[in-house]
Amino acid sequence: MTIPSLKTHRQQFPALANKAYFNYGGQGPLPQVSMDAIVQGYNDMQSYGPFSGKVYQWQNQETQLTRHLVANELGISPETLTFTENVTVGCNIVLWGIDWQPRRFHLEVSFFPLRETLNQGDPVAMISEYLKPNTRLLVISHILWNTGQVLPLTEIVNLCHNYNTKVLVDAAQSVGVLPLKLAETGVDFYGFTGHKWLCGPDGLGGLYVSAESLSELSPTFIGWRSIIGDEQGKPISWTPDGKRYEVATSAYPLYAAFRQAISLHHQWGTATERYQQICQNSQYLWQKLSEIPQIQCLKTSPPEAGLVSFQLTKVKSHKSLVDYLENRGIFLRTLLDPNCVRACVHYFTSPSEIDQLIETIKEFITTP
Amino acid sequence: MTIPSLKTHRQQFPALANKAYFNYGGQGPLPQVSMDAIVQGYNDMQSYGPFSGKVYQWQNQETQLTRHLVANELGISPETLTFTENVTVGCNIVLWGIDWQPRRFHLEVSFFPLRETLNQGDPVAMISEYLKPNTRLLVISHILWNTGQVLPLTEIVNLCHNYNTKVLVDAAQSVGVLPLKLAETGVDFYGFTGHKWLCGPDGLGGLYVSAESLSELSPTFIGWRSIIGDEQGKPISWTPDGKRYEVATSAYPLYAAFRQAISLHHQWGTATERYQQICQNSQYLWQKLSEIPQIQCLKTSPPEAGLVSFQLTKVKSHKSLVDYLENRGIFLRTLLDPNCVRACVHYFTSPSEIDQLIETIKEFITTP
Repeated sequence: MTIPSLKTHRQQFPALANKAYFNYGGQGPLPQVSMDAIVQGYNDMQSYGPFSGKVYQWQNQETQLTRHLVANELGISPETLTFTENVTVGCNIVLWGIDWQPRRFHLEVSFFPLRETLNQGDPVAMISEYLKPNTRLLVISHILWNTGQVLPLTEIVNLCHNYNTKVLVDAAQSVGVLPLKLAETGVDFYGFTGHKWLCGPDGLGGLYVSAESLSELSPTFIGWRSIIGDEQGKPISWTPDGKRYEVATSAYPLYAAFRQAISLHHQWGTATERYQQICQNSQYLWQKLSEIPQIQCLKTSPPEAGLVSFQLTKVKSHKSLVDYLENRGIFLRTLLDPNCVRACVHYFTSPSEIDQLIETIKEFITTP
Repeated sequence: MTIPSLKTHRQQFPALANKAYFNYGGQGPLPQVSMDAIVQGYNDMQSYGPFSGKVYQWQNQETQLTRHLVANELGISPETLTFTENVTVGCNIVLWGIDWQPRRFHLEVSFFPLRETLNQGDPVAMISEYLKPNTRLLVISHILWNTGQVLPLTEIVNLCHNYNTKVLVDAAQSVGVLPLKLAETGVDFYGFTGHKWLCGPDGLGGLYVSAESLSELSPTFIGWRSIIGDEQGKPISWTPDGKRYEVATSAYPLYAAFRQAISLHHQWGTATERYQQICQNSQYLWQKLSEIPQIQCLKTSPPEAGLVSFQLTKVKSHKSLVDYLENRGIFLRTLLDPNCVRACVHYFTSPSEIDQLIETIKEFITTP
């Protein structure tokens, strides 16, 4: 297999044709092959049905193919994967599904000051310090959406399991960035979306529930996809797998679009190769930003993922910078906590895009 | 405005080009204008972003336009409308959101034999008989998905409110069929989908929560769409409207597709005109079916909606009939309870489609 050139590869993404794009953490650009798959999916559904025995088979095949491909991406077995509309639904499934005895409600929720460990200290040690004897669940992000900090998942899970604490991960920023072998980490719950770093369509994501945790996590929102019926269609049990947390009809043409996006990434390189390229790109951006006197990056050492957040040290507002950039075809976003600007780079971000961003930021800063 | 001919109107639906279609209660055919809107939506998102200030405005406008149009369809105010992925999610929101004091769980659930009132008797009287002093919620369908029975919603709501019982309606089969002025009925909760009788895309539906019931129904699954944040983005309250039950990212291109489908129906006629035509078509089908000796329709009088369910009185299985028909390009489905075959007709079903169905059923019955 020949690795496509960066230019050829970027041409697969229509969104990249007219802009410099740094909002992968918000939403990834949809490749043309995914758009084609959506159109094909709608056309097939209309041709076969839209409601018919043939469409029913087609939908089953679409979900099965996608379940296997995505499970493979994550290093998990297909039975442990639930499709959701977004990351948040995945997290909600877990938060409502745990049997919080003796009282399901009136939970005690506490926080720990993770951000203090961004540039020094050890997040595992901090979590160890803040875990309580009765902590049932730790909720973290694998990669922090604001600071870009990457947490050591396996170490955290090992620690928590020693205390009988389960771990729920918001994986919005990690899936499509980090090479993952989730089952090996031991993590209990891992909620992700296809529409950010994997560049799939919005409205399709998933939740991993480990085989060990499946029987302990009750389904909350349920529907015909969750259950097995008897000869009269009467529910008799949950499905034996992650489908028990799925509800009812979804936009099925999105499934093939998601698969096409994943396949396109594979054409460029392995998960490890892509992650290394992301880090190379973000380190280049971080270095260039650090050289601008009026800019302070949140991280004082090179980033370990694709997110580079920074602050303006002078009076101009972050919003005015983002607006200034967007008016010039360069797309970043502000964050409120910490108050900063976030630039995301993907493996296919080009050096010239980064140079253009840097030049335009300098232009903004020096404009009265 | 000129009313388009039936032939011209049917040409707007690609699915109808190659088959005789009777599965509207399963999923409606997506019009070409809706498919075009989906493609346009994806292209616009890629051109504007996909994540940017402009896309954010576009998404807000898309949801707002759709919220207003759909609210108008239902006779409700836009603030009382929540978008969901399907009917089932809407019903789940209600079932989990009610403050079932003193104990939120261990609810007592009981059933009433509504089907006995299909051909005789009065559903309102039956509900009155089965309501208990402590019944908090009545769950019904507006139109029964299996028998096609249409329930008198206003009378049922009036009865229940006299007993302080709220009413949740599964509206999968009524939205897009009945002319609706929901706010006038007093109903508390009404969950529907766009992808059946309204012929919108799968994966987009909604829930109506009456203004009176909004404050009493706690959100369960929540996300950034549900809340209002302070200057640091920290949640400080629910949104004041039905958005409090919405969660996070959805497939936004579906919104315009949904609007296009609704507009297309308006081009043909008013809700009342469409409903009358549906009844005319279903009565024609019911009459023709009733004339076949080996067929028994579940209803002994003409249907009041688009669903016509029937049984074979001889030995052949319902599944073999449905397979026989699908192999000949005629699409119906079996139901398990009661064990029967269901044919759905829409306002744009053609008499020749019905004649073709009848002839093919006769052929099936007489084939050894």
